[in-house]
Amino acid sequence: MKHGGDILTYKDLYEGEIIDFSSNINPLGPPKGLKEVINNGFEKLIAYPDIQYRELKAEIAEYLGCNNYEVIVGNGAVEIINNVISMFKRVVVFTPCFSEYIKRAEILKKDIVKLPLDKEFNINVNTLIKDLKGGDLVVLGNPNNPTGKRIDIKTLKHIHKVCLFKGAFLLLDEAFFEFCPEDYDSISIFKNSKNVCIIRAATKFFGLPGIRLGYAFSNEDIVNKFENITPPWSVNAYADIAGRYIFRQHEYIKDSKEYIKRQREFMLSKLREIEDIEVYDTHTNFILIKLLKKTENEVFNSMISKGILIRKASSFEGLNNRYIRVAVKSEKQNEKLIQFLKECI
Amino acid sequence: MKHGGDILTYKDLYEGEIIDFSSNINPLGPPKGLKEVINNGFEKLIAYPDIQYRELKAEIAEYLGCNNYEVIVGNGAVEIINNVISMFKRVVVFTPCFSEYIKRAEILKKDIVKLPLDKEFNINVNTLIKDLKGGDLVVLGNPNNPTGKRIDIKTLKHIHKVCLFKGAFLLLDEAFFEFCPEDYDSISIFKNSKNVCIIRAATKFFGLPGIRLGYAFSNEDIVNKFENITPPWSVNAYADIAGRYIFRQHEYIKDSKEYIKRQREFMLSKLREIEDIEVYDTHTNFILIKLLKKTENEVFNSMISKGILIRKASSFEGLNNRYIRVAVKSEKQNEKLIQFLKECI
Repeated sequence: MKHGGDILTYKDLYEGEIIDFSSNINPLGPPKGLKEVINNGFEKLIAYPDIQYRELKAEIAEYLGCNNYEVIVGNGAVEIINNVISMFKRVVVFTPCFSEYIKRAEILKKDIVKLPLDKEFNINVNTLIKDLKGGDLVVLGNPNNPTGKRIDIKTLKHIHKVCLFKGAFLLLDEAFFEFCPEDYDSISIFKNSKNVCIIRAATKFFGLPGIRLGYAFSNEDIVNKFENITPPWSVNAYADIAGRYIFRQHEYIKDSKEYIKRQREFMLSKLREIEDIEVYDTHTNFILIKLLKKTENEVFNSMISKGILIRKASSFEGLNNRYIRVAVKSEKQNEKLIQFLKECI
Repeated sequence: MKHGGDILTYKDLYEGEIIDFSSNINPLGPPKGLKEVINNGFEKLIAYPDIQYRELKAEIAEYLGCNNYEVIVGNGAVEIINNVISMFKRVVVFTPCFSEYIKRAEILKKDIVKLPLDKEFNINVNTLIKDLKGGDLVVLGNPNNPTGKRIDIKTLKHIHKVCLFKGAFLLLDEAFFEFCPEDYDSISIFKNSKNVCIIRAATKFFGLPGIRLGYAFSNEDIVNKFENITPPWSVNAYADIAGRYIFRQHEYIKDSKEYIKRQREFMLSKLREIEDIEVYDTHTNFILIKLLKKTENEVFNSMISKGILIRKASSFEGLNNRYIRVAVKSEKQNEKLIQFLKECI
């Protein structure tokens, strides 16, 4: 199981509609009104999207609180991860992490340094200091996938200082940013800093994995370098249209954040009542669970037989077959998950 | 001017709607009924597209007359060009050609061999034989952009034989395939051959440059290699939906072919009545023109002042500032182009 959301592969294992807890998408769905915006945009398909994505970038810059020329757009966050990695010689990650950091680096034939997170899945900066070299790229999920943990602000600033000192570059993958508590915004923090790129995405929070819209903040020189190496028109016309609508939906953004917060707290407390599992803290809309008595396959099989698709986590380097990951979904779905998980564990 | 279709950059140079002769899209627009199909597909956005694109590939295989496992899909033809180039050490092209062959090879830090087309923009196979080495990738536009010329069947088979003999690989970019006369289908010819990949696209013929759907036929081992290096979900949900509809629109396909054929012949004959230009033969929906007395800038400026955007061609390696390229568009638009071009030349 390389990625979540692959319902089609498992559809014959359950008669009826499978609930997908393996991908981490806003359970409220996309913002209201988007359907009309998209349906009115059909005519945009018959021309190329603006090759410079000028209006889209202006809209994102407004949302992020930065300048237009500091914005990158891409075919999902994963294209941005790939293309930024391609600019560096060596990539440093902390495991477990989103598998594509390592996979893209391997495909691009980069040297890779894999450092372990500590037992609580936090970053030990001293480990990084020891191994980091000038010219390196440090790729960190913030919050990290599959652990759900956000880097605390003090550690984050420390890591960036270390990067500056060593002449390394920091790539923060914040595809799940909006689901997190609003204690800090890394873009405000690093607004005038060098050697940093911060990726966000429409995929998860705006409930639009099918539309493929990733974006990022970085310095003008990195933005220019990115534009230069990225194939033309990599963002499709519908992603362009949607991106000019969704970031203005302030009510939807507020409601989604509150909903996820409530459901996350509900799930954490209910899951922690179940014996023989360890439920890790999370700042976002998915939860990593350690199975103390069963294997991921045992739990996966009994859950899918009840119509629930969970994410086996052994494919994440640094984890074994004793971990699963589940999304935070709608109240009813979450209750179902908890009930069935209780029964099978 | 790196690419056609960039209307936004020139929009202030003309009050009114600019007619875009710089990009080569089916003037009939996308197939009827697609709007409804897309509008009914909004719900697809809230899930990831099938990570394996199983249904889409089956549909394309049916259209191409090959097996599902011989189909590649990508975020436009350009992603496929990029990723295939990334698999080889050295890239051989004939200039002038689509600028991205050279650009992607440069970005991927490949060695590049640029061979010149002859005076009539045909390939001299002996030139290729002389320079080709084992492990090389030969990238050919068929028809070629900006020349509009298709490789004749005998030469094409000869080139492929040379590739096989030398242990090189042939990448045919046939993004404009359906616009061409139906004298041969390279996929039927190379159905059981090795060392070949044939790219097609929905962009041009199906009038959908905004949707980003490229696809290709190749051997199973190349397909697998491609899947392995391409980032997940690189084709968006709408491209997936559209791709499962457009290839069945046989009437539309037939009508579009006939329309383009008629308009191409009309334009060629009318353009050839204009003095002081040389109009090259073309098999497709764009025409390369040599300016015998004026420069591309002079013609570009007087045409844009009349609301017509043409493609300056000096950015194509091997051409200078004496060439322009124009699309074959609707009858009325073509008449306008011819009238204005007459006046300005």
